[in-house]
Amino acid sequence: MPQQLTIGLFGFGSVGSGIYHLLKKKTIPNIKLKTIVVKNPDKPRSKNAEHFSYQPKDILEDEDINLVLELIDDADAAYSIVKKALEKRKHVITANKKMLAEHFQELTSLAQKQNVSLLYEASVCGSIPVIRTLEESFGQDSIKSLRAISNGTCNYVLTRLFQNPQPFDRIITDAQKHGFAESDPTLDIDGWDSKFKLIISNYHAFGVLNTPEDILNLGIRHVKPEDIEFAKEKNFSIKVLGHSELNDDGLNAFVAPQFIKNNNLLTSIEFENNAVQIDAEFAQQQLLQGKGAGSIPTASAVLSDVVSLLRDYTYSYSKAETSSSEFNPAQQIKVYISSYDKEDLVPFKFKTEILCGTRKHLQYKIGKLSIKDLKEQFEAQSAKVFVAVFPD
Amino acid sequence: MPQQLTIGLFGFGSVGSGIYHLLKKKTIPNIKLKTIVVKNPDKPRSKNAEHFSYQPKDILEDEDINLVLELIDDADAAYSIVKKALEKRKHVITANKKMLAEHFQELTSLAQKQNVSLLYEASVCGSIPVIRTLEESFGQDSIKSLRAISNGTCNYVLTRLFQNPQPFDRIITDAQKHGFAESDPTLDIDGWDSKFKLIISNYHAFGVLNTPEDILNLGIRHVKPEDIEFAKEKNFSIKVLGHSELNDDGLNAFVAPQFIKNNNLLTSIEFENNAVQIDAEFAQQQLLQGKGAGSIPTASAVLSDVVSLLRDYTYSYSKAETSSSEFNPAQQIKVYISSYDKEDLVPFKFKTEILCGTRKHLQYKIGKLSIKDLKEQFEAQSAKVFVAVFPD
Repeated sequence: MPQQLTIGLFGFGSVGSGIYHLLKKKTIPNIKLKTIVVKNPDKPRSKNAEHFSYQPKDILEDEDINLVLELIDDADAAYSIVKKALEKRKHVITANKKMLAEHFQELTSLAQKQNVSLLYEASVCGSIPVIRTLEESFGQDSIKSLRAISNGTCNYVLTRLFQNPQPFDRIITDAQKHGFAESDPTLDIDGWDSKFKLIISNYHAFGVLNTPEDILNLGIRHVKPEDIEFAKEKNFSIKVLGHSELNDDGLNAFVAPQFIKNNNLLTSIEFENNAVQIDAEFAQQQLLQGKGAGSIPTASAVLSDVVSLLRDYTYSYSKAETSSSEFNPAQQIKVYISSYDKEDLVPFKFKTEILCGTRKHLQYKIGKLSIKDLKEQFEAQSAKVFVAVFPD
Repeated sequence: MPQQLTIGLFGFGSVGSGIYHLLKKKTIPNIKLKTIVVKNPDKPRSKNAEHFSYQPKDILEDEDINLVLELIDDADAAYSIVKKALEKRKHVITANKKMLAEHFQELTSLAQKQNVSLLYEASVCGSIPVIRTLEESFGQDSIKSLRAISNGTCNYVLTRLFQNPQPFDRIITDAQKHGFAESDPTLDIDGWDSKFKLIISNYHAFGVLNTPEDILNLGIRHVKPEDIEFAKEKNFSIKVLGHSELNDDGLNAFVAPQFIKNNNLLTSIEFENNAVQIDAEFAQQQLLQGKGAGSIPTASAVLSDVVSLLRDYTYSYSKAETSSSEFNPAQQIKVYISSYDKEDLVPFKFKTEILCGTRKHLQYKIGKLSIKDLKEQFEAQSAKVFVAVFPD
């Protein structure tokens, strides 16, 4: 057990400044923030320049520092920092889901080899203790499925659309104005962010590790008012879910908008909130709900990781050690595909076609195909189609 | 860290047989169930008599056994077992909320003194990791409030009443028939069970310890169809909540039915499900939802405690160590009080009377008074009044 945690903090953006304020506010015995490294000396910040260093080596080569908080945006730079920190036998806490999803195996193995902890509660659904709960409370349970509303931007946009169906472009501009969408919202609205989170949580839930290339991610860029009206009429909500389900055929995992019946608790999760629905063999259905983003809520998850290191906490990865489950994208799903142009629907070939329809100017069809085929067909086309999973 | 956990199990009822089956199903290295002690040799059980002992000493005086699972109903006998086990320096895991609430200080101090762990995740809301989450994820956060639907029987009954307002006696009989209420449902429907859970969780959330005598518990024994109709008309649900709120005046804590606006997530928690809403300074609003009872779900929480002992887990009680908060029952609350007989309402003296009304044969009034006064006035009367907290 470390006698003293001496912290080097990379990044002073939303989460970095958040953890700075929390560590300043709470005086926790044996925890000391020593150095903050930021990239750009000229960027205006809420603290004076004297508090900052600009050289990664000021943390990485400081032998006093035994814990690195990696809280920068750039996934490639984050990877390089985390790797070096682990090589220097420093514990690492990170919130960078993209970096983790892309280098998971390498970094977790390196941490294990170096006998240090690599913790990342804040990387999945911000303040919600998803990873810790999967590790500690359900580590010996068999998870049957995990369904997560893990992207606040998508959920905010969909909530607003269900209040008032309107063109996507109008609502995303408004979301940006209110701070619920980035100036380039691609990672969020196309499901990438949710995919990175799904890859991380799946390893803890099922012991299955995927690369970002393995997993289909569908988003809401091309959702239309008529899609929303169609859902409302049939008593559905639409939520973008990270969906993972383990059955006899293996692990079925993808990110996609889904039609969900309005009696499901997930449909009560509104605006920027996140939630994870866990169906476990023993504990049965659980739901964790909370803030998935924001400076202080996300920093609270980083803080819980910091404190856990005082007790020498490290993930046990018990599922990865015991599970023989495998990813299987050959499983069939039922999907709804829509566009204003009927031609756009042609590239999608169903194994079983169930329904074709129109609504005002909208053309849609519902049918079944494998996740693998859907991924290939979706990625091969460039039309403005909206694709959502439809319940069986 | 114990090299090997050798378990002695007391009790083979719902949770006891549940954990027996889980331990049999999961082969976990370094965990072995050695002895099961039950009270009554003649009671029919799913296992043969050869599996059981009938003498507590077969566990308590077995030096091999270093972990006692106390899963019997009788709170007094449980207290005696747990105390002896701790004195013998055995770790203890218990699900007995009544026993814990009545002897909390003594037993936690004894465990600390003996340098063993006393864990009880299953005692609060069954499978939902309430204690672990408060300890590990929010141990450094400041909890502002905790609102728990922690009694499945009350929630089942209220859900059914909101589907179809009808006399309480009829619905409780039906709940008993379906296994959602005990043959003597007093502990559940009068709010005792929720009170024990509130006492335990408040210590972890706020560092404040109460005795059962301190805390007001109101239940649903005298809820009437007209109360339900009144709530529905005004767009409220009624839920029995363990309610704790820390403000500048101290900790405000009680168990009572509450009128809750239908946009609150707690109103989506139906039937026998449990949920805990945590409002924390940093993490903000969180909700944990799941099965609060049942053989296997509750045993899953016991199992998570067992496994955590392999890593030498013990509660840190960080709030109790740092908090100077005190229980303050002088705080005012707004309540709704109803009865078919107007005279029944007379003993309740409001500081501020807000409204008197009738609905069919029902008489009701709404007003403000202190929790302390309400407790005294409620306990001094014996009429069939229904009392519920009304939002400000």
